[in-house]
Order: sequence, then structure tokens, then C-alpha cells
Amino acid sequence: MILKILTAFLFSTTCLFAQNDELHKTKIKNIFSQVLAVGKSYDWLDHLTNQIGGRLSGSLNAERAIKWAKEELDSLPLDSVWLQAVMVPKWVRGTFEYANIESSPGNTINVNICALGGSISTPSIGIRANVVEVRGIDDLSKLGKEKIKGKIVFFNRPMDERKVNALEAYAAAVDQSYSGAAEAAKYGAVAMIVRSMNFRMDDYPHTDVMSYGDLPTNKRIPAAAISTNDAQLLSSMIALNPRLRFFIKQNCRNYPDVKSYNVIAQIKGSESPEKIILVGAHLDSWDLGDGAHDDGAGVVQTMEVMRLLSMDDYKPKNTIRIVLFANKENGLKGAIAYANSVKKNKEQHILALESDTGGFTPRGFSFDTDDKYYDKIIKWKTFFDPYYTNHFERKESGADVKKLKGKAKVLAGLRTDSQRYFIHQHSEMDTFDQINKRELELGAASMTALVYLTDQIGIQ
Amino acid sequence: MILKILTAFLFSTTCLFAQNDELHKTKIKNIFSQVLAVGKSYDWLDHLTNQIGGRLSGSLNAERAIKWAKEELDSLPLDSVWLQAVMVPKWVRGTFEYANIESSPGNTINVNICALGGSISTPSIGIRANVVEVRGIDDLSKLGKEKIKGKIVFFNRPMDERKVNALEAYAAAVDQSYSGAAEAAKYGAVAMIVRSMNFRMDDYPHTDVMSYGDLPTNKRIPAAAISTNDAQLLSSMIALNPRLRFFIKQNCRNYPDVKSYNVIAQIKGSESPEKIILVGAHLDSWDLGDGAHDDGAGVVQTMEVMRLLSMDDYKPKNTIRIVLFANKENGLKGAIAYANSVKKNKEQHILALESDTGGFTPRGFSFDTDDKYYDKIIKWKTFFDPYYTNHFERKESGADVKKLKGKAKVLAGLRTDSQRYFIHQHSEMDTFDQINKRELELGAASMTALVYLTDQIGIQ
Repeated sequence: MILKILTAFLFSTTCLFAQNDELHKTKIKNIFSQVLAVGKSYDWLDHLTNQIGGRLSGSLNAERAIKWAKEELDSLPLDSVWLQAVMVPKWVRGTFEYANIESSPGNTINVNICALGGSISTPSIGIRANVVEVRGIDDLSKLGKEKIKGKIVFFNRPMDERKVNALEAYAAAVDQSYSGAAEAAKYGAVAMIVRSMNFRMDDYPHTDVMSYGDLPTNKRIPAAAISTNDAQLLSSMIALNPRLRFFIKQNCRNYPDVKSYNVIAQIKGSESPEKIILVGAHLDSWDLGDGAHDDGAGVVQTMEVMRLLSMDDYKPKNTIRIVLFANKENGLKGAIAYANSVKKNKEQHILALESDTGGFTPRGFSFDTDDKYYDKIIKWKTFFDPYYTNHFERKESGADVKKLKGKAKVLAGLRTDSQRYFIHQHSEMDTFDQINKRELELGAASMTALVYLTDQIGIQ
Repeated sequence: MILKILTAFLFSTTCLFAQNDELHKTKIKNIFSQVLAVGKSYDWLDHLTNQIGGRLSGSLNAERAIKWAKEELDSLPLDSVWLQAVMVPKWVRGTFEYANIESSPGNTINVNICALGGSISTPSIGIRANVVEVRGIDDLSKLGKEKIKGKIVFFNRPMDERKVNALEAYAAAVDQSYSGAAEAAKYGAVAMIVRSMNFRMDDYPHTDVMSYGDLPTNKRIPAAAISTNDAQLLSSMIALNPRLRFFIKQNCRNYPDVKSYNVIAQIKGSESPEKIILVGAHLDSWDLGDGAHDDGAGVVQTMEVMRLLSMDDYKPKNTIRIVLFANKENGLKGAIAYANSVKKNKEQHILALESDTGGFTPRGFSFDTDDKYYDKIIKWKTFFDPYYTNHFERKESGADVKKLKGKAKVLAGLRTDSQRYFIHQHSEMDTFDQINKRELELGAASMTALVYLTDQIGIQ
């Protein structure tokens, strides 16, 4: 008898699960259909990139982007939209950089460089010096002060093209641009240049954030990235003539911090308003392109999640909140301010999902969470099968949501196809015309589906 | 005792499997590293597209491509390379097409069209007529002869953008271009135009194969594709003025069949030479672009499989053969000739793998085979996990290998990300600059890995 009851119970539970599963499948299908047929993300991105453009922290464009995003979100039927003030760094490129290779006196070839974000300028007459080429920071101690002093250090270790995941190849090479100047300065270098983080051979230099660490102001040296084609050119010219000289002039400047804002919007949960499902992306971008992939795509995808879940009479059980973070690129001050407010207000986040790997075809999600939560989430994979976005992996999930580590049950990141990302990232190649509408939209739909499932099924 | 022996046996077998698995994993890792770091597919494709170009069946360029492919394969350490003669259709576009919309007498707007492959030309003075817009072939019988006679039928049903798999959206729309002219002619239409098979709104018309079925020669009407932007324009102008006229002039011509060739190369198996593992792609292309994605990518990936397996002291157990098929686009005569020779020579194919979905990031493979074989192959999925090419599905696997149905144990197709394919396919947007080197190479590596596993593990 007990067995019979148990069986009946199990059967009914299974039926209920099966029914719910069918409901979720139908809802997710509708999400994808709506985004692909009548989505807003592509038009939003067109405006953000082409009418506003690159929006580096502290710039007028960053302010314009904040104002635009708030206005767009105000026009949706949400419960609240607000700005969270935060002080951010202000670094300005100034006149575009100029560099050449002087193979013999008077014999020069122009090359494409750009200052790394945070770098100091050169003296107004520029710097001309011999070059020492290295494969990485470790090489500096091998060469020693004698061989480096008075020279420009040229970091030329390419991203490892054998790595299939391009993000991993980037992570394994970016120490050169982040710390190269500080380390080279310790050996008496007068400037540093670094090969752009780009698999492709082309003429576009890619900027990135750099740090002088605790190096005193008077010890700092200018830092610039050189295009992959010109890195190759410089390397082969050094091989022919190790005495060649490199000329670099840049005009960038650090200003005192200025006020900026995270843009935040939410729909209050109908059952558990104290539980927050967060979706985020960063609204700032580097200045060379218009920040379409990095991270305009993530911004409009995040806004699209909010738009979809505010339509269609959907009443979320939990609070759905989005944050368009300020200053991810050179300071993460927006993410830090948001995390501090979460701590201060003792807010409870069950999911914090970020999109910051470009508007390419989504492949799935990364999750940074405990075993017990991941064991449940992994079962949702099948919901994503029909959309080819079912690659789930346990990895770090994005620099902005990472600041919520320990404060959110699950950190997650949309993971897009990584092959083309580094053609665009941080360079003038990051423009709206390089966005495929459907790829962008599939990302927005995938994110909405994950938020929907989290809201409906919960994370216990 | 028996249990003990059995356990020992099972254990050793497991160990052996595990050892082999590790060996396979290492080999596959090497394959990916080699293709990504020192592969030849990208350089080959550069030559095929930029030095040869579009290569429609029967053209001089098709002959040049065959000669080039044979020479390249001859330079590899293979057992044999040969040409298999086959008669193919010869259709020539002639002077580029011209069309306009005449909203009122003398008031015209030029629009972008191209003849569909196989279409007849217009009279030399062109055709000017009213337009009747339909959503598909079914609409013709609803309208009837009265409303169609003397007019140009305009098929304007877009590819369904809600479909995530773009190949499925294409399959559901392409009946319009393939059969539209034959069907419209039956109702007295004087010409047909069809909206290009392209999700994106742009100005490039996309050609494709069309058929007049059993329509007598004197009943045939010219057929052309119009760009998506101009299809939208035409539709909205018809809504304003149903009496507008459309002008079309095209100069294409069908010639008698000419001789062409499949290019075939192989390495003889060291253990089971009678068992053949086939890899193929089609060497012909449409004439508007340079056939980089369709199917130059598949051609060079196929050649790369052969190059990799002929290097590195690898001795395949089975015969590895590649076929670069003639005339896939407008006749499949190469595939038919090859399938006939397989039948005649009673050859035994264990796998026939095709690449014909563009040089985009590979997502996995489709398989057309029996349950018993698929149950084994599905276990190989994990070998592809590290490369994000582990999406296996049971579907048709390509038009060329399909001719081997019933003659090969397993038909398979490389399945690439489909979102951007129809921007390029059959249009002047199908050019080498639209190829991403790494995406192309990952496809070649995935194919090589599947062939390697088939050769090592077998399909029983």
C-alpha cells in the first residue's frame, strides 16, 4: 500500500515536472521567436554605437550613454530605474599617437600604435631609442639592466594560436600589456611597446588597461600597443639591424577622478521580492572604436532581457534587476560600488549573469558557483539544446559580476563564440558594422531564457 | 576463479580502452595544434578564390580549379591522385542583368537582380510588365490564370527568421526559387523574380539553381533573384501602386553539356585497404563571388585532412580518399558519377564525410546512418569537447555524399555555425575576405579528427 501511494506520488510529481518542463520549453521558444523576429537589441546597439560612439570613463560620451540608457529603460514598464553614483578614473588619449622605425638616420617607416589606457605621455618631442625585443616579463631579469637601460622594451609574445578558446589565449598573453611597462621601467627602459592582443595579422593597434603598480610617478614610462603586422615588421627589422631606433610620441593624460553612474533598473518580484536575479554588462568602452562588441552588445542584450520580462504579462516571482556598470575597462569602479551597496543593504542575489564576450553566436554559459547549485543548473542544459547554446562550463564568469563573489549564489557569464573577438576588442575595428544581428539576438534570447528558468525553478 | 579471470579480463580491457582513449586524445590535440599553427587551408583558399575565383561548371575557371587542385595534391606524399571524367551542364550568365521599377511612365528606380542558374534569358529588349506579389507557390492557384497571365510573379516569402538553424529556414523557403518559374509559367506569367535567400537586409542578389521541370522549352520564362532591400522596396511600392511595372533584362544561356572532372586522391590502407573513408567537398561554385565559403572552404578543409594524414608518419589502417566533386551547384553530376563508380567497382565505404556549410566555426557533425552505427559514433562526442565541436545530430549530411546513401555505412556532414552563411551563399558577398582563418582551420581539424577516429576505432 505504501509502495502504491509512493508510486502514485512519484508519478504525479513526475507528471507535474513534465508539465512544467513543457511549459518552460514553450516559453523559451517564444522568447527566441520574439527576440529574432521583433527584438530591439540591434536597433538599440545601432543608436548606442553610431549616435553615441566610444564612451570611455570620464568622457562626455560616457555621460551621453548613461543618459540614453536611463531614458530607454524609463520608457519600459518597470518598477524602478535609478542611477548609482560612483567616482571613476579619467584618462584621455589626446591627439593620436605617432611612431616610426628608423632603420638608418633619416630612413623611417611609419607604424601603427596606440597608447595603453592609463599610460603617461611621452615628452612633447617624443622618445627615440634603440629597441630590445622580449617574449615576456621573465626575459627582463635574464637581460638585466645593462641591456635594457635607455632602450624601448618591445614585448612580442603572440597570443598562442594553438589555444582553441581565444579567451584563454588572451589571458595567457595580457600580462605583457598590463604589467610590462612597470616591470621594464625597473630595468631602466625609457618606454614599452607591446604586440596587440590579436590573432589576426592586421594594421590595427589594440589598447587595454595597464598598471604602473606601486612605481613612483617619476619612474613611469610611456606604454603603447603596436599592430600585429607592425610587430612582425619591427621584429624582422631588428633581426636585420639590432641598432635600429624606434620613435614614439603620445599625448595622453590622467586627470583626477570624476563622477559617473551605474544605470540600474528592476521589476519587483511578485512572490520573493527580496531575492534578486541580476543581469549586467558594462556601459563604458575604450575610445578607439564605438564599443559595439565590447560591450555595447552586452548592454543591449541586458536591456532586452528586461524588456522581454516586462512585457507579455509576465510576473516574475523574484526581483529582476539589471545593472549597466560604469568603468569596467580601466578600474571596475562601477562593479565595486555596486557590490558595496549589495553588502551594505544586505541584498540577496541568487544569480548574477554578465555578458561581456562580444555579440557573437552564443555557445552557452560559464558558471562560478558551488557544487550543490551547479548540480541543479546543469539539468537546465537540455532547455538550450534547440538553440545550440547548451555548452555549460564551470569557470570565472566576468569581471563585473566577480565583485559579487560570495554575495550571489551563482555567478554566470554568457559565453559566445570566441574566434573573432580579438579582431575587434579595444581597437577601431570594434564597430557596429561588425555585428551580426542574429548572433546578437541569440545571445539576448539565451540570457532571457536563463533568467526565466532561474526565476521559475529557483536556485536552492 | 572464473569471476576473477573475468574481472581481470574486464579490467585489462578497460585499461586498454583507457590507454587508447588517451592516445586518441593526444593525437587529436596534435591535429588541432598543427592546423591552427602551421595549417595550409587558409593559404590554399587564398589561391583558389583570389587567383582562380568563381568557378561555375563548364567555365574556364572550373578547369583551372581542377588543374590547380590536382597539382597541389600531386605534391603531397599520397598513393594516387586521379581525375574522374563527368559531363556537366554549362550555363553562362553573360552581361550582368538589369532591372528597374517603373512607378509611373519614365519614373524608374534601378534595383539589384541576378538570373537564377539555369534560367533562360529575356528577349533582347527585356520584359516590362505588371507585378503580382505572392508569398509562395500555393498562392498561384488561389489567384488563378486571370490575375497572373501577362504579369511578372514576385515570390516574396522571407526566410523565417524565428528559425535558429539557418539551414532549416533556407530549406523552407527555397522552393520559391527552385520551382517558382515553372509553376508561375503554368499560369501565364511572363517572368518570375524571387526574394533572395538571405536573412539580412542588403543590396546583393543571390543566385541559386532552378528547374523548369518538364515544362516545354517554348513555355519557359526568365527567372531572377532580387536583393532583400529591393524586394522590400518593390513590395512597399506595389502596396502604393499595384499598377507599377517592372523591367527585367538578362542575357544568360544554356549550352550543351561539357566534360569536367572529379578530383580524387587517396592513401591506401595499411590493414584494410578495401575499406574506404571518404572526405569530400565541391570544387565548383556559383559565378557571382569567388566561392570562398561555398564551397572553397570545404575544398581546402578536405585537402587539409589529406595533407595531415599523409604527414607525420601516420599509416592509416583503412584507405583514406578525398573527392573534390564537380558540379554540385547545378546538377550534382560529379556526385552521381562517383556514386556510380562506387557501385560498379563494388567499393566499400565506411564513412563519407562532406563539408559544405561554409568556413564558419564548426559546431559538430550531422550523421545519416543506422542506429547501430550511431550508437557507437555518439560515444566519440567527448573527444570533441575540448574543441567546442561536440554537437552531434542525426540529419541529412550533404547533397554530394547523399548520392552514396545505401553504399556507405555512415554519411556525415561538418556542421558549422549557420547564422552568417546566407549573407554570403551564392552572392558576390561570398569572397575570401569574409573568411576567418581560425574558424576555417577549426573545421579542417574537426574533420581530420573524425576521420582519424573512424580509421582507428572503425565502424562495426
